[in-house]
Amino acid sequence: MAGSTFGTVFRMMTWGESHGKGLGVTVDGCPAGLPLCEEDIQRYLDRRKPGQSGFTTARKEGDVAELLSGVFEGKTTGTPIAMMVRNQDQRSRDYSAIKDIYRPGHADYGFDRKYGARDYRGGGRSSGRETIARVAAGAVACKLLEQYGITVTAYTKSIAGIEVQPDRFDLAERDKNSLYMPDADAAAAAQEYLRQVMAEQDSAGGVVECVVKGVPAGIGEPVFDKLDACLAKAILSIGAVKGFEIGDGFAAARARGSQNNDPFCVDSSGRITKETNHAGGILGGISDGSDIILRAAFKPTPSIARRQRTVTVSGEETEIEIRGRHDPVIVPRAVVVVECMTAVTIADLLLRGRDSRLSCVQP
Amino acid sequence: MAGSTFGTVFRMMTWGESHGKGLGVTVDGCPAGLPLCEEDIQRYLDRRKPGQSGFTTARKEGDVAELLSGVFEGKTTGTPIAMMVRNQDQRSRDYSAIKDIYRPGHADYGFDRKYGARDYRGGGRSSGRETIARVAAGAVACKLLEQYGITVTAYTKSIAGIEVQPDRFDLAERDKNSLYMPDADAAAAAQEYLRQVMAEQDSAGGVVECVVKGVPAGIGEPVFDKLDACLAKAILSIGAVKGFEIGDGFAAARARGSQNNDPFCVDSSGRITKETNHAGGILGGISDGSDIILRAAFKPTPSIARRQRTVTVSGEETEIEIRGRHDPVIVPRAVVVVECMTAVTIADLLLRGRDSRLSCVQP
Amino acid sequence: MAGSTFGTVFRMMTWGESHGKGLGVTVDGCPAGLPLCEEDIQRYLDRRKPGQSGFTTARKEGDVAELLSGVFEGKTTGTPIAMMVRNQDQRSRDYSAIKDIYRPGHADYGFDRKYGARDYRGGGRSSGRETIARVAAGAVACKLLEQYGITVTAYTKSIAGIEVQPDRFDLAERDKNSLYMPDADAAAAAQEYLRQVMAEQDSAGGVVECVVKGVPAGIGEPVFDKLDACLAKAILSIGAVKGFEIGDGFAAARARGSQNNDPFCVDSSGRITKETNHAGGILGGISDGSDIILRAAFKPTPSIARRQRTVTVSGEETEIEIRGRHDPVIVPRAVVVVECMTAVTIADLLLRGRDSRLSCVQP
Amino acid sequence: MAGSTFGTVFRMMTWGESHGKGLGVTVDGCPAGLPLCEEDIQRYLDRRKPGQSGFTTARKEGDVAELLSGVFEGKTTGTPIAMMVRNQDQRSRDYSAIKDIYRPGHADYGFDRKYGARDYRGGGRSSGRETIARVAAGAVACKLLEQYGITVTAYTKSIAGIEVQPDRFDLAERDKNSLYMPDADAAAAAQEYLRQVMAEQDSAGGVVECVVKGVPAGIGEPVFDKLDACLAKAILSIGAVKGFEIGDGFAAARARGSQNNDPFCVDSSGRITKETNHAGGILGGISDGSDIILRAAFKPTPSIARRQRTVTVSGEETEIEIRGRHDPVIVPRAVVVVECMTAVTIADLLLRGRDSRLSCVQP
Repeated sequence: MAGSTFGTVFRMMTWGESHGKGLGVTVDGCPAGLPLCEEDIQRYLDRRKPGQSGFTTARKEGDVAELLSGVFEGKTTGTPIAMMVRNQDQRSRDYSAIKDIYRPGHADYGFDRKYGARDYRGGGRSSGRETIARVAAGAVACKLLEQYGITVTAYTKSIAGIEVQPDRFDLAERDKNSLYMPDADAAAAAQEYLRQVMAEQDSAGGVVECVVKGVPAGIGEPVFDKLDACLAKAILSIGAVKGFEIGDGFAAARARGSQNNDPFCVDSSGRITKETNHAGGILGGISDGSDIILRAAFKPTPSIARRQRTVTVSGEETEIEIRGRHDPVIVPRAVVVVECMTAVTIADLLLRGRDSRLSCVQP
Repeated sequence: MAGSTFGTVFRMMTWGESHGKGLGVTVDGCPAGLPLCEEDIQRYLDRRKPGQSGFTTARKEGDVAELLSGVFEGKTTGTPIAMMVRNQDQRSRDYSAIKDIYRPGHADYGFDRKYGARDYRGGGRSSGRETIARVAAGAVACKLLEQYGITVTAYTKSIAGIEVQPDRFDLAERDKNSLYMPDADAAAAAQEYLRQVMAEQDSAGGVVECVVKGVPAGIGEPVFDKLDACLAKAILSIGAVKGFEIGDGFAAARARGSQNNDPFCVDSSGRITKETNHAGGILGGISDGSDIILRAAFKPTPSIARRQRTVTVSGEETEIEIRGRHDPVIVPRAVVVVECMTAVTIADLLLRGRDSRLSCVQP
Repeated sequence: MAGSTFGTVFRMMTWGESHGKGLGVTVDGCPAGLPLCEEDIQRYLDRRKPGQSGFTTARKEGDVAELLSGVFEGKTTGTPIAMMVRNQDQRSRDYSAIKDIYRPGHADYGFDRKYGARDYRGGGRSSGRETIARVAAGAVACKLLEQYGITVTAYTKSIAGIEVQPDRFDLAERDKNSLYMPDADAAAAAQEYLRQVMAEQDSAGGVVECVVKGVPAGIGEPVFDKLDACLAKAILSIGAVKGFEIGDGFAAARARGSQNNDPFCVDSSGRITKETNHAGGILGGISDGSDIILRAAFKPTPSIARRQRTVTVSGEETEIEIRGRHDPVIVPRAVVVVECMTAVTIADLLLRGRDSRLSCVQP
Repeated sequence: MAGSTFGTVFRMMTWGESHGKGLGVTVDGCPAGLPLCEEDIQRYLDRRKPGQSGFTTARKEGDVAELLSGVFEGKTTGTPIAMMVRNQDQRSRDYSAIKDIYRPGHADYGFDRKYGARDYRGGGRSSGRETIARVAAGAVACKLLEQYGITVTAYTKSIAGIEVQPDRFDLAERDKNSLYMPDADAAAAAQEYLRQVMAEQDSAGGVVECVVKGVPAGIGEPVFDKLDACLAKAILSIGAVKGFEIGDGFAAARARGSQNNDPFCVDSSGRITKETNHAGGILGGISDGSDIILRAAFKPTPSIARRQRTVTVSGEETEIEIRGRHDPVIVPRAVVVVECMTAVTIADLLLRGRDSRLSCVQP
């Protein structure tokens, strides 16, 4: 059973390869009555576009969304929403360098062992371009969540260990630098570091943090479809992610219970809330009404210009030098992808929660 | 849509509450022909049993597995395998202390907001006893994986920051100490620390590491059902887990591409393998033939005897002192749960992979 | 991927064999707050019990339901509802007559080819006893539907071509005769016919009709999960069913459009309704507010005492005489099974429909 | 939870409306290595094209398939296969006649009640054009089944009660007449009847029969995903289908067990087979190696020119005359749709069956 479907109520199926005709996604289960247009999708796609700075690939992608179905008179009809982005650049190239060689850090070898063959042009289905479909679906999910007062915001938390500092955190700064870091000083330091990395034909990794505001308490499904479990799967399904944290994450494993437990309290409006938020907004897999906070660790871009040892498909040791320009760090372009995967997950569980009681629970 | 089902081909549905009649699981999709008996299940259940040391609750559980269906003449028939453990201790108690109060760090508040009510006796469905069903299913999965030469081994990696040291790592030691740490010195230090924690009516967290040997290359489903994404969901669905790593995890976010990429090479038997394993055995969501290595961060036990601030169900601030004995650290008993959730995930994706090609791919 | 799961939101997984320890079902996704007790389940189970007339097997089954989880203080909690019936009669018998021979009209041969082996005692998983699990789940679904003013009622429509006559139809009569026929004369004629069938060591088939009242318009999911498509699957999944009709069914294939179309009209209370109901309450896969009417064709009981030609498992032609008492007609005991499978399907799609709009649609 | 997904291992998700930008389908789970090209899809689409006779709508559709992904160097890669057909005729028309009126026999009313609105242009998502996506996916399934020696063949069995006669049955004749009837005399009689129906501004229904050859014994999943249950759902999900039969269907309900049971025997090559095939190739939900035979009853085309009573969306009684040309009978164009839905179902269960044993069962 293949794995190109995500979600149960708000469900998407994606398709496409980096060098095929295009990439797309169909979202089935978006409620009827949601205002939606192509610009809503395009705005999100533009945020993952390359060529926006010196740290992303120069390849001109100009991905244009086409909205194919599910919208009538400006609103969703409740039927499937199909979206597609045509690949513009399908020129025939010389792939002989990578056709018969397994690139280190890539899925080439796994695909060959799994399917007996693979689309070797630019990674095919395992290319980063696959995230276009996630972002298109995520744009719909974000529009939906908006209706319920929920916002999803991600940003670069750190690059190669250079971290956004709490006291300098400024969300407005995020969209001002090419690294999507909400801290101008950290961004400057990281940019400096990346220049050096590029000079050394190498690459770097980093961490993306995502904050969801407005999720009511009670979202998430015991036992296996806990909200954090579903988020973990959503985030780990993004290529290059190697770690996931909710709330304090690994730091919680070093804390005492008396420090880590968040006392419940009553706010000025008489609403139950928590004094602290070590839990990251989720207790026992169910949202507790606080902000949901998660982090994703991205490995360094595996495609590096530096010569690397590897093997051929016929099992002979060889060396490879990966040509072409590649992002020295994936993180900035992944920010919107994290946002989108978080949004589709929250949207799905929000709708799923409507079935919890005899009378429907409104999100 | 509720969430008590896990897996697609090797699929389980669990049921039960801590103070109801019992807990159980039905596994549908285990292939026919697998030798299986109650002892196979019991051996795994015994590993999560409390009362085995000073650091687990003294409550005598003595969980006995009953195998109800799906096995005939000592072998699985391909039909559902139902297993059940009766709760022995259903005495009526006085729950007034927790009935109307939300315990910090627990799912009480979320359940009430979600369902409009909850089984307040010992956490009901959100109790740690829920893992009995996971372990029973995991025992079947481990038995199945054995047939394909795959072994799953977890252990305590650290408690409250006291970590197993690579140079002292000794798997045989794991079963000799009550903390399941494969390092006698680290275990001794952690035990000493836990005594102090208990004296202070507090609790501690820790990290479990799991290693899977023998998984062939090619397991995992692009795009959303990547092997690591499915593992992340499986692990985060365990109560109290706040973080997940595959391979180098968060450390990879600080590494260079040239360090993090694992060069492919050919071993002495002519088989393709990797020189290093920063990836933790998974590239692009597909197994690469190396050991799969993952880690789960567990928060400190939320039930602590110390007085805590919280609120009542009617929204009044109050204080709570949680009585009864509770494990000062969840980690040792969670080791087998991590092992089992890893096993069911691997089993599921292994079977799913049979459909990748025209002619069947054998695990 | 095995097939013991039914439904998506109101979802059940069943287990058990005719001569194993018992049979059971877990229902995940029943909303919280529904009053439920063991008697609710037992009442439905009693309706499928054998030994109630001369036309059902004399074997004393006395199936007693045990409710294992998901109910607290008399109401469902929203967590899985596990139910079990122990098999009372597990005496070791002599199965040599059927162990190595494929019974005509049974699944024996298919099971062997599929799984490489089978539980040959009384059909194992393919036994009619498997419906116990369906009925237990159906009892919960019926209780749930009641809350929304929906009732599901099935009855024997015909036996061996002896049909209930519209002008003699009397639902109250259904529970007065052993054949569950709502027409005393038809029942008498069918009973007479069945006596003859039994004397000739043969068996008969028949048709069950089911009427669902109170389903609001708008239930069912285009394109593949149309309400009638889901009902068809539910009904055909019952052993021995060979045909399904909704509304006029096959007769519609012989009608003109002008006859078959049901004119919409407005009733005395100003509500939109239909003048006729050839559609059987479903148009384009979505309920139209009229009664839902379906029929299931059951083949004659395949187990007959008469000598039959068949083959052994090793592929040699032979003859078989099936001993023991078997119902000469399955239909009467299947009535409650049809009712229950209809109920779980309606319940599932009713809950699924809550997601159709931005604001929840209440059933 | 919406219903535009079909299948589990061989899984498709469809999208599109009759007057939107187009219609499409993504097939996820087709094994790698299958030769596939656009012509394979087009050949099937051409069979459902209108305008091929006096009995189908004159509207020129000329549906052209575009294959968007999942194929590389002429073979499937194991990744999603996206296919799309653009709607050519999107001129703005005057829909005022049907915008505010519920057409009898159509899903208009149900859609409004379900979603609060609908795409009223030509039925939108509930249009017969929706089957384009089914046929595209079915073409892939047929290509796949071919690899395993399985063929799926449907034909018109009867129109308005005028039935193909067994002694005149000639499959070669099927493609020679516009009604796809494998009996020239029956076709001529039906054509004559349809001319009269059209003259009377009315419509007719009919029955499609489908035969699947080459399915090995052992396909189908007990309990709920029986092969015939899955086929029933597949067939009933096609618009206008009101009845389904497998093998003898409703006639079995009138037969004796001794007549209906098919004796097993051994054929000249020593293979186990059956003397007769009343079962239609399926016993206990599992294929028995004989031909699978099913029938679908189609109601008369609901769109008729004749004046009909109905109501407006605001609940006022009115009359409607449906303009434009509509097929007086749906059946001939539905033949390929029945074939395709049968094929995707068989393909799915064939692949699902690979998991039944420890070592893989090859289809």
